[in-house]
Amino acid sequence: MNFCSDNATGVSPEIMAAIAAANYGTVSSYGDDEYTKGLQVKFSELFETSVTVFPVATGSAANALSLAVVTPPYGAVYCHRESHINLDECGAPEFFSGGAKLVTITGNHAKIEAETLEKSLARAGVGVVHHVQPAAVSITQATEAGTIYTPAEISQISEVVRHHNLHLHMDGARFANAVASLGCSPADVTWRAGVDILSFGATKNGAMAVEAVVFFNEKLGNNFPFYRKRSGHLFSKMRFLSAQLSAYITDDLWLKNAAHANQMAAKLAQGLAGVEGVIFCHPVEANEIFIQLPESVIVAVLAEGFQFYRWDKCTVRLVTAFNTKEEDVIAFVEAVKRYQ
Amino acid sequence: MNFCSDNATGVSPEIMAAIAAANYGTVSSYGDDEYTKGLQVKFSELFETSVTVFPVATGSAANALSLAVVTPPYGAVYCHRESHINLDECGAPEFFSGGAKLVTITGNHAKIEAETLEKSLARAGVGVVHHVQPAAVSITQATEAGTIYTPAEISQISEVVRHHNLHLHMDGARFANAVASLGCSPADVTWRAGVDILSFGATKNGAMAVEAVVFFNEKLGNNFPFYRKRSGHLFSKMRFLSAQLSAYITDDLWLKNAAHANQMAAKLAQGLAGVEGVIFCHPVEANEIFIQLPESVIVAVLAEGFQFYRWDKCTVRLVTAFNTKEEDVIAFVEAVKRYQ
Amino acid sequence: MNFCSDNATGVSPEIMAAIAAANYGTVSSYGDDEYTKGLQVKFSELFETSVTVFPVATGSAANALSLAVVTPPYGAVYCHRESHINLDECGAPEFFSGGAKLVTITGNHAKIEAETLEKSLARAGVGVVHHVQPAAVSITQATEAGTIYTPAEISQISEVVRHHNLHLHMDGARFANAVASLGCSPADVTWRAGVDILSFGATKNGAMAVEAVVFFNEKLGNNFPFYRKRSGHLFSKMRFLSAQLSAYITDDLWLKNAAHANQMAAKLAQGLAGVEGVIFCHPVEANEIFIQLPESVIVAVLAEGFQFYRWDKCTVRLVTAFNTKEEDVIAFVEAVKRYQ
Amino acid sequence: MNFCSDNATGVSPEIMAAIAAANYGTVSSYGDDEYTKGLQVKFSELFETSVTVFPVATGSAANALSLAVVTPPYGAVYCHRESHINLDECGAPEFFSGGAKLVTITGNHAKIEAETLEKSLARAGVGVVHHVQPAAVSITQATEAGTIYTPAEISQISEVVRHHNLHLHMDGARFANAVASLGCSPADVTWRAGVDILSFGATKNGAMAVEAVVFFNEKLGNNFPFYRKRSGHLFSKMRFLSAQLSAYITDDLWLKNAAHANQMAAKLAQGLAGVEGVIFCHPVEANEIFIQLPESVIVAVLAEGFQFYRWDKCTVRLVTAFNTKEEDVIAFVEAVKRYQ
Repeated sequence: MNFCSDNATGVSPEIMAAIAAANYGTVSSYGDDEYTKGLQVKFSELFETSVTVFPVATGSAANALSLAVVTPPYGAVYCHRESHINLDECGAPEFFSGGAKLVTITGNHAKIEAETLEKSLARAGVGVVHHVQPAAVSITQATEAGTIYTPAEISQISEVVRHHNLHLHMDGARFANAVASLGCSPADVTWRAGVDILSFGATKNGAMAVEAVVFFNEKLGNNFPFYRKRSGHLFSKMRFLSAQLSAYITDDLWLKNAAHANQMAAKLAQGLAGVEGVIFCHPVEANEIFIQLPESVIVAVLAEGFQFYRWDKCTVRLVTAFNTKEEDVIAFVEAVKRYQ
Repeated sequence: MNFCSDNATGVSPEIMAAIAAANYGTVSSYGDDEYTKGLQVKFSELFETSVTVFPVATGSAANALSLAVVTPPYGAVYCHRESHINLDECGAPEFFSGGAKLVTITGNHAKIEAETLEKSLARAGVGVVHHVQPAAVSITQATEAGTIYTPAEISQISEVVRHHNLHLHMDGARFANAVASLGCSPADVTWRAGVDILSFGATKNGAMAVEAVVFFNEKLGNNFPFYRKRSGHLFSKMRFLSAQLSAYITDDLWLKNAAHANQMAAKLAQGLAGVEGVIFCHPVEANEIFIQLPESVIVAVLAEGFQFYRWDKCTVRLVTAFNTKEEDVIAFVEAVKRYQ
Repeated sequence: MNFCSDNATGVSPEIMAAIAAANYGTVSSYGDDEYTKGLQVKFSELFETSVTVFPVATGSAANALSLAVVTPPYGAVYCHRESHINLDECGAPEFFSGGAKLVTITGNHAKIEAETLEKSLARAGVGVVHHVQPAAVSITQATEAGTIYTPAEISQISEVVRHHNLHLHMDGARFANAVASLGCSPADVTWRAGVDILSFGATKNGAMAVEAVVFFNEKLGNNFPFYRKRSGHLFSKMRFLSAQLSAYITDDLWLKNAAHANQMAAKLAQGLAGVEGVIFCHPVEANEIFIQLPESVIVAVLAEGFQFYRWDKCTVRLVTAFNTKEEDVIAFVEAVKRYQ
Repeated sequence: MNFCSDNATGVSPEIMAAIAAANYGTVSSYGDDEYTKGLQVKFSELFETSVTVFPVATGSAANALSLAVVTPPYGAVYCHRESHINLDECGAPEFFSGGAKLVTITGNHAKIEAETLEKSLARAGVGVVHHVQPAAVSITQATEAGTIYTPAEISQISEVVRHHNLHLHMDGARFANAVASLGCSPADVTWRAGVDILSFGATKNGAMAVEAVVFFNEKLGNNFPFYRKRSGHLFSKMRFLSAQLSAYITDDLWLKNAAHANQMAAKLAQGLAGVEGVIFCHPVEANEIFIQLPESVIVAVLAEGFQFYRWDKCTVRLVTAFNTKEEDVIAFVEAVKRYQ
């Protein structure tokens, strides 16, 4: 009955099996192995275009490394004020980029709108030496509010990005949940919509510890290996990262896992909708629910052993995962109703 | 028949079992779990003193983070010219410390001598604003040449370190091999000999991807969590790192694994000793052998399918691991003799 | 008729004379000279307490160095959204601190209020590894809007700062204008009100190129010399910086220069007050005026040869300096009236 | 009687006059003034090719900024072990480049030889992710030992530099002394010999505080303004830097000043040659002399009031400047002879 986060869960059995299977014999280290080399083909198929893929072990590493290769030290990354890179990575993007600045934008439900972005960029002072220089825009899919950008919305943003000669990064820690929710091709919300670099998350959706940094423009990734090594993120026994990623995208495991998590979130939302005192802060579009509950209810439900995080004052966040049990969802809804 | 590196091997079965066993239920993320908390006690017992332990996934991260917390940006880390931190981490220590300098020292068989260190530090210009300021000394145990510091040698070094008010770091990527070779307590070559921070390696000796940063002086580690998070090295599903470390030090697995690797290296050395044309570059004290072989022999042996790295011109490096087979060792020796 | 900025002016004659007078004989370089040593006593007298003073040549260096010595790389500097360090230094504070984050606060007339600061800090997540850690607060005196903090307002802010165990920095690029306007002792708006470090500006008020970084807590400045040297801001012929500073604070030159600039601004404000179409954006408390003017008036006045900067859309900024001529002020007011 | 350093001297009268003359009226700040704009033409004439020039105030800033724009954080700068950037800038190149590494090379009389450089670069491991990647080579002209590279020697070095696709930087803190000594065109020892970026020193040779960073390849300097601003090295009253540079290269002042300093050094060398107990450590080719003297002589001469630095154990360094008096040179030689 743990709705704290999708990273409180363990590892999907298919991925654990792949890790065990990779533990055979000696192979070249540091990624010069068949598991890792095979990812280039597999991900290119998945994304219906030729991509370059680099496995790393954490989402913060994926994001910070992605941004570092396209942002000079005097550069600026435009992102939502609520974004993970701005609030929850202890300054990793600043560290990896050599001190670039995150310029934050507001927007409902943790989403950036193209128009707001355009206005912000118009004030940036491009070419004026006193100001940090716009280099990249980063959006999160699904967002930190559990909402989702449509392909059209991303295209509108990327149009602004192109117009200003910047690069577009997508923090896809919950990319699978977004794609499963949209029911589109992963290409539709990435390169076809103008995304240059994707942090393709896996850890929150059933992997042990792996994310793929996907470059849709190969050149952008040319220096990535040096940034990765230099930050301690090149693994000697890389095969165990690559095996996770491989299993993750084989037979649509990533989408199946995400679809389950999304369904559980939808079920939670349905159950809670209309209950008196429950206020939804954001539309429920992926696997996260943000609701306001009366304090008495929060206290009572926590006392029953349900686990979740408080988010600001009276808000709680509920996150579902690839292995969330339907019975737990039902139990939670009933508990809330009981104390209402 | 792969003698390339101890990181070309897979995972020790006991550790793989521990990973699988940890995959049960939901637990708090980011290290707030029982696996991780338990490490403090286990490592304190192992080292016979109260220590603070932080799991990270790579050796470069362990070293660079260790050095960053004791070295200001204008500081200097004194280390051997052949050290891994100087040559093989793509500048990770410089990156994590904000641009500190590695001041290199020479010495036979990749070892620093106390006297040489003292001479180098005497020239440092402490307090003179034009010069980077000595902050830390880093030694490798076992060294990059496969040699080992005795407790007495480390004590001599640490005496110099104390005299200059610096901190002493030990890169223990192959710490197990050193301790197994010395037959001493791990305490004897660390805090009892004056070491402040240890990168306690596990990956090369049977783990999948984990190292422990061990602080013998708790205060030094106070800011470590922020440096770790900020560099993307805080794992959400930390239990899988901690479970590896736990299994690694349970029932002396780490020493058993290392002892086997050392024995295989010793056997290789015995077999090759006296063979005409074979010149040993360094004493064989752990699990690495550096020898000069005639070019014709190198080519012939490689052609037979033996794998190893050339090291500089006519030298080859042979590394044994926790699972190196005795038959492979015998086969290699015979092959060299055959082509001699 | 140049109201662009107080740094468009030249050098106060007294300061130019001091520079010329310092050009005599050989003296020790890098600040080991009598001019520089004398500053410690002179500034301690000026501030009525024992201070440590370091001359640097630019305001950005003064600010960034001040903040770097009290902010770890994973730290946060709280400042106003409109502050110079946030908008106009191309990321210098981020650079010098190794990638710390500027957390911005809003407030009328470019001033931070203690209550807003307290609210922002309460949300910072101190000790939580995912978030950058509050380290310093920086306020600007006079502000970027030409307004001034009273001693009481600063004390309220510093109370919050102390409560959170942070350090308080004051960007005093126009410190003289503030003190001249308040008519108080420089101590009253600095250490007596809880300021730890002051960027004591001189360049905008008649110096050629010098600012003093003043530490009211000596210990905080211990590592400053290394940060300064390492950033290329230690001058070999330091005497020429120190001579400027010495002349600047001798016989109240700094206050006389500032008082003149303030009077010229006040005269401008008086002349423009009540003119139809003129809207004051901020109270005029020092030597800067921000007004909205009809576009037709702006164009006409510019065409007459008056020089000033547009500030956002319909706003113009007028800055007066130590040598602004009263006749120019009168001419400007008349010109505006004429085209109104 | 001060032979400590050429930065212990004051300012050349012609340059002081130019500073005073620039103190007239209001001009645009931050380099948008006629003094600064005029430098582009003047320096292009001086170097007989189109160059881009950026004034900065210190030699460390000039060097570190020059290297930062051509060296990625994971890059390496190859330089002599005795070079100023390696020993005397408190890690400024590491700071400005975001943590790049200085790879040091030995060579007689503080000079790099092309062959040694080639050997060192051949071992660099270009493209291998574990190693920092060669990005730039930096040589000093005149060197830290007071010796000089001939155009041919520089061409040999630059051939190696080109072959490895690197950039060649020249630290010309004493560039004038080198050119005056060689009697060649400044073009001959810079771009014609393959130099890409020059730190054109002026401070040590009669300026108050200014150096010019000269780009012979305009593109390399494109991002320089952002690096300069961000490091606090963009001066608001830039005209006073530019006026110094302008006067410095007008009517060959820079060469006249340097020629005098060189002559005084030559005279010192002639006087000391053959004196018993005097051993010359390096050829005297510019304005620095490094000699071994008996300890008793050093003590006696210092007691007479002569000022100079000890350099390592028994060595002393004597530096002459644009205004060194011949009588002082004669007096020093006589003093040494007297105590011999």
